[in-house]
Amino acid sequence: MSFNLHPQLIADCYVLGRDQHCQLLLHKNASLPWFIIVPETEQTEFLLLDSALQTEILWLASQLSDFMRNRLGVKKTNMATIGNIVSQLHMHVIGRSEQDVCWPLPVWGHLNTQTGYTESTVIDYTEILCCEYGLTAAVA
Amino acid sequence: MSFNLHPQLIADCYVLGRDQHCQLLLHKNASLPWFIIVPETEQTEFLLLDSALQTEILWLASQLSDFMRNRLGVKKTNMATIGNIVSQLHMHVIGRSEQDVCWPLPVWGHLNTQTGYTESTVIDYTEILCCEYGLTAAVA
Repeated sequence: MSFNLHPQLIADCYVLGRDQHCQLLLHKNASLPWFIIVPETEQTEFLLLDSALQTEILWLASQLSDFMRNRLGVKKTNMATIGNIVSQLHMHVIGRSEQDVCWPLPVWGHLNTQTGYTESTVIDYTEILCCEYGLTAAVA
Repeated sequence: MSFNLHPQLIADCYVLGRDQHCQLLLHKNASLPWFIIVPETEQTEFLLLDSALQTEILWLASQLSDFMRNRLGVKKTNMATIGNIVSQLHMHVIGRSEQDVCWPLPVWGHLNTQTGYTESTVIDYTEILCCEYGLTAAVA
């Protein structure tokens, strides 16, 4: 199946890797750890996916949550599928803490700071997620 | 197990019913259809629940999505677990449309209108969700 990421997701995110049927993105705003899982499907509603794909997405979300807990010391995860602006189905998996710049508000429409990742951090995240959490790296 | 709903959820919502391990709430703000599923657990992170309880929550969310699609003509669902302010685990299942008062923004921190349900609408929703979608009604 030919699948193309939505241009807004390409503009906003790094593609870190993929699982069997999902792409794993990292939002370029480094103010807080913000991952996005994009299943390669035309379906726009998470609850209308077949259960196997729902399970794959939740497994990926769990891996990201474990990564943030173990490597970044982040214990709180905000998880959401919204898609009001970008209709292509995507799940946000965002690490939150009382010390972050947006706490306690959700990030959507409330995150007003913009910082970037260094290239080495993006490479580190990719390698850790691939080697320790079972993702396949993105083809450059 | 003794389980008490968080006071903020009690203040904000009607309790419509319950499933095996979850309570089903309807947010009192009728500006758009906004349901909240509360699993009866001390765990605050959805991704750390056992898979059986995750599955039960997603099944309930699917029932709500079907109800909104079939009865309210709402095709878009926003689904999220946030919990930055109310830490008790709860999943938002919100019906959205391009005609609603908050579109395309997410409701959290952006919904500035407040309207109420009639008692008969709350009773109708409860009855439909119980009879057609398998929920058990709340004990009065």
